[in-house]
Amino acid sequence: MDLSVVFESKNVAVIGVSTSNPFHPANIIYNKNYYSTECCVFAVNPKGGELERRQVYRSVAEVPAKLDMAVVAVKAHYVPAVARECAAAGVKSLVVISGGFAEMGEAGHALQDELVGICSEAGMALIGPNCFGVYSPPYVDTFFLPPERTVLPRKGDIAVASQSGAFLVDQVMTNFYEAGIGISVAVSMGNKAMVDEEVLLENFAARSDTRCICFYIEGMDQGVRRFIEAAREVTPRIPIVAYLGGKSERGQAAAKSHTAALAANHEMMAGALKQSGILEATTEAEVTSFCKILSFYHHRPLRSCDIAVISSSGGHGVLASDLAEGAGLRLPQFSEHVQEDLRMLAEPSVRDIASFANPIDLTGSATDQDFERTLDYLLGHDHIEAALVLTLPYTPMMTSFVGTRLGQVVKKHDKPVVAYVPDLAKYGMVLEGFELNGIPVVHSIEEGVQMLKALRLLGLYAGGGQPGCPR
Amino acid sequence: MDLSVVFESKNVAVIGVSTSNPFHPANIIYNKNYYSTECCVFAVNPKGGELERRQVYRSVAEVPAKLDMAVVAVKAHYVPAVARECAAAGVKSLVVISGGFAEMGEAGHALQDELVGICSEAGMALIGPNCFGVYSPPYVDTFFLPPERTVLPRKGDIAVASQSGAFLVDQVMTNFYEAGIGISVAVSMGNKAMVDEEVLLENFAARSDTRCICFYIEGMDQGVRRFIEAAREVTPRIPIVAYLGGKSERGQAAAKSHTAALAANHEMMAGALKQSGILEATTEAEVTSFCKILSFYHHRPLRSCDIAVISSSGGHGVLASDLAEGAGLRLPQFSEHVQEDLRMLAEPSVRDIASFANPIDLTGSATDQDFERTLDYLLGHDHIEAALVLTLPYTPMMTSFVGTRLGQVVKKHDKPVVAYVPDLAKYGMVLEGFELNGIPVVHSIEEGVQMLKALRLLGLYAGGGQPGCPR
Repeated sequence: MDLSVVFESKNVAVIGVSTSNPFHPANIIYNKNYYSTECCVFAVNPKGGELERRQVYRSVAEVPAKLDMAVVAVKAHYVPAVARECAAAGVKSLVVISGGFAEMGEAGHALQDELVGICSEAGMALIGPNCFGVYSPPYVDTFFLPPERTVLPRKGDIAVASQSGAFLVDQVMTNFYEAGIGISVAVSMGNKAMVDEEVLLENFAARSDTRCICFYIEGMDQGVRRFIEAAREVTPRIPIVAYLGGKSERGQAAAKSHTAALAANHEMMAGALKQSGILEATTEAEVTSFCKILSFYHHRPLRSCDIAVISSSGGHGVLASDLAEGAGLRLPQFSEHVQEDLRMLAEPSVRDIASFANPIDLTGSATDQDFERTLDYLLGHDHIEAALVLTLPYTPMMTSFVGTRLGQVVKKHDKPVVAYVPDLAKYGMVLEGFELNGIPVVHSIEEGVQMLKALRLLGLYAGGGQPGCPR
Repeated sequence: MDLSVVFESKNVAVIGVSTSNPFHPANIIYNKNYYSTECCVFAVNPKGGELERRQVYRSVAEVPAKLDMAVVAVKAHYVPAVARECAAAGVKSLVVISGGFAEMGEAGHALQDELVGICSEAGMALIGPNCFGVYSPPYVDTFFLPPERTVLPRKGDIAVASQSGAFLVDQVMTNFYEAGIGISVAVSMGNKAMVDEEVLLENFAARSDTRCICFYIEGMDQGVRRFIEAAREVTPRIPIVAYLGGKSERGQAAAKSHTAALAANHEMMAGALKQSGILEATTEAEVTSFCKILSFYHHRPLRSCDIAVISSSGGHGVLASDLAEGAGLRLPQFSEHVQEDLRMLAEPSVRDIASFANPIDLTGSATDQDFERTLDYLLGHDHIEAALVLTLPYTPMMTSFVGTRLGQVVKKHDKPVVAYVPDLAKYGMVLEGFELNGIPVVHSIEEGVQMLKALRLLGLYAGGGQPGCPR
C-alpha cells in the first residue's frame, strides 16, 4: 500500500468543521492547513454555509478538486456514510480522527469493520480511526491541537508512528523539539484498522529522507509477524527504534480500553524486536537518545564495546564508568605508554594534575586544546570505537570553540563522539558549537551512555560481537 | 563537631589570591564573596600588594578581624605552613580547595595527614582538601567557578554534601535550579580528611531549615559504620537521599584517583543505606525527583502502594501503569460503583468517551473541573494514598487554573499529588499554577513515578508494609 498520496496530499477536505465552534478539532485542522501547510484545504459540513467568509461544502462531492485526503471528524456512527461519500467522490485516503470504534467494545468493533470494508473496496487508504492522523511537513498536518499550545520539531530525517497521539506529541514532537531532532513524517495510528506498523514501515523505508524509524507500540495481534519480517529487511539499512507500552498487567488493560490493543507478552515481543535488529528503547529518555544519535551516526554502528571517556571532572568520569558497564560498554584500561603519550600532549598546567587512565580527568584547568589533542590521539587508536566527552562549561579555560575543534577531529577519524553539556540555556553557544559540527549533545551522562549503547546494539545485531565484551 | 561557624562565617580570608591573574580560583572566591554574600572577605598573599585598590594582606595574622574561615588555594606543599599560620591566628575553620593530597598517592597522603594533625590540634574544622568547599547562602560561597557560567538554585530546605564538586554543580545545583528546588547549604567534601558524611549529617540534621538531606558518595572506609548509625537516628525525622558513585570496577578505579575513595562493595553499601532508611537514588534523574518530592511532602510517606493515575491521554496512562508496576506501586482496579460515581461527576462532553478505570483517561475534551472533581473524589477514598496527574496543556479545554484548583483539593485531603506537564517554556504558567499551590511538577512520566516511589519507600522503611503490595 503506497501512502505517498497521503504524505504529499495536495488537496485535502476536512469533514465536520463547525460554523459556530472555532475550537472544534476539525476547525483547528482546517485552519492549520489553510495557514501553515502547502496543501489546498476545503471545509465540509452537510449544513453548508461559510467559515470566515470561505465556502463550507455540503459534501466532498461538491469540492471542486480531486481530493488526496479527507479528514473525518464527525461522530462515529456517521463515519461509514461519510466514507461511502468519499469513495464515491474518488477521494484517495481517509484520516478518521473520531473515536468510538473498536476501543469502545463490540458495537464499535462492528462499526470499524464496516469502515474498513468501505475503504478496502474503494482502494482508499485509512489512517485511524481514533487518532491524530498525519503530520507531514510541508504538505499536510491533521494533528488537531491548538498550534500555540504545541511545538513543531524542525523538518528532518526521523519517521515516526505511534499508537498513542499524546505519546507522539509529548514524548516525540515536544522532546525532539527540545533535543533539536528533526522529523520527516509522523503518523498517529490510533486503532490502526488498516494502516498499521508494517504498512508504515514499508512506506517510511521507501522514502529517501528517512535516516531512522521510530515506533510507539501498545499492542499487535495478527500484525506482529508481518511487521517483524518487514523489519528484518529494513534494519540492515535503516535503524528502527521501538518503545513498547502495556508491559505490565495494568498497562495492558489500559491499552485495551485506549486503542483496542491486545498487548503481546512483553518478553516475547522484546525478543522478536531484537531478532529483527530493532532497538528497544526502555525509557522515555532512550527514545530521544536513540533517535538523536541515529540521526547523527545511523551509518556508524560500533564494532566493539570499547569507548573512551574524556572529562574535566573526576566525579563525572566515575558516573560514566558505572553507567557504561551497565549498558554493555567497556572503558579499556590505557597502557602506561598511552598514558605517557597523553600526558605529553597536555598543556603544562594540566599535565601533573590530570588523570590519564580511562576515564580521563583533564581537570577543571583543561583548555579546548587539551580536549582536542586527547580526543584526536584516542580516536586514532584502532581499539577505541567511540568517545564520550563530558564538558563543564564553567571551567574557566574552556571556550565555546571546543565543539568546533572536536568536530574537526571527528571528521578526520569518522568515529562517533557524544558530548555532555549541562542543561542551561546559557550554555547554548557551547551546545551549538558541537551540534553544528556533527557531535550530538546530551544533558545527562546517562543519555550520553544511552546513545553509545544504541550504536553498540546496532553493531551487535549486525553480527559485530567481540570476545571479551560484556553482554 | 559543630560547623555552624563554617556555615555562618562572618569573616573570611581567601589565601592565595593573585594580583596578576583575575581568573585564579582564589580571586573568583574573593570577588564572589565581596560582591554577593554577607560575609566580610579579606585577600591574603605573602607578597602583599593591592587587588582592585583593596589591600592584600601578607598573612592571616595581619587581617584586622577574628576569622571564622580561611579558604586555602595555594599549592599543596605550602598548605601545612599556611594551616599553622591560621591556627596561630585563631582561625576557626579551613576550606582547602587545593588538590595534590591523598588522591595523588603516598606522598600526598602524608601531606594530608600532616594537615589533619595541625587542624585537629588547633580545633580548626577542615573541609577538603581537593574540593569546592561550602555554599551557604547568604553567608559564604567558596565554589571557585565564574558566576556568569553557573547558576544558583534558590535558598531552600535541601542540604547537600558531595564527594565530587562537579556532581554538586551539575547534578545538584544546575538540575535543582532547573527543577525549582531550593538548597539550604551545600558542601563539596573532596578528600573529606576530617569533615565527612557523618559530621555533615549531624550538622545538617541540627539545622532548623533542613527538610531533606542529599549525599553523593564515591567511597567510605572507616566512616561507613558511623554514618549508617547516625543516619538511623535522623531518617525517622528527616529523609536522606544518597547516590553512590563507583559501583562498577572501572568506576571504583576512577574514584580512587579522584578523591582517594575506597569504594565499598555496592550491594553491601546499598543494603546498609536501606537498613538505615536512606533512599538510594539509582539515576541522576532520581536524585532530582526524590529531593523535589521530599521538599514538598517530606512529612507524608505513603502508607500503602495504592495510587490513582488521572490523565487526559490513554497512552500516558499506559506508560504510567507500566512504570508504576516497576517501581513497586499499584493502580488498584476501581469497582463498577466507583467508576459510575466518577462518570456522573464528569462533564457531559466527557462522560461517554472517558475511561474511568485506573488509570483514568478523561480524554482531550477534559476540563479543569473534570480533573478537580475526579481528584477530589479519589483522594477522598481511604485506600488511595496518592495521585499522579498527567496533564496535556494542549488539550483545548484545560486552562492554566488547573493547578490552583487541584492545589485546593490537595490541601483538603493532605495526600501527595504529583503533576506531569511537558517540558516547554510556554507551559510555565501551567507549571506555576501547580507548584505555587503545593503540587510538584515533573517533565516526564518516569520522574512522576519516581517521586511517588520515594514516598512509598519512606513509608516502607518506616514499617508501613502492606499485605498484597508488590515488593
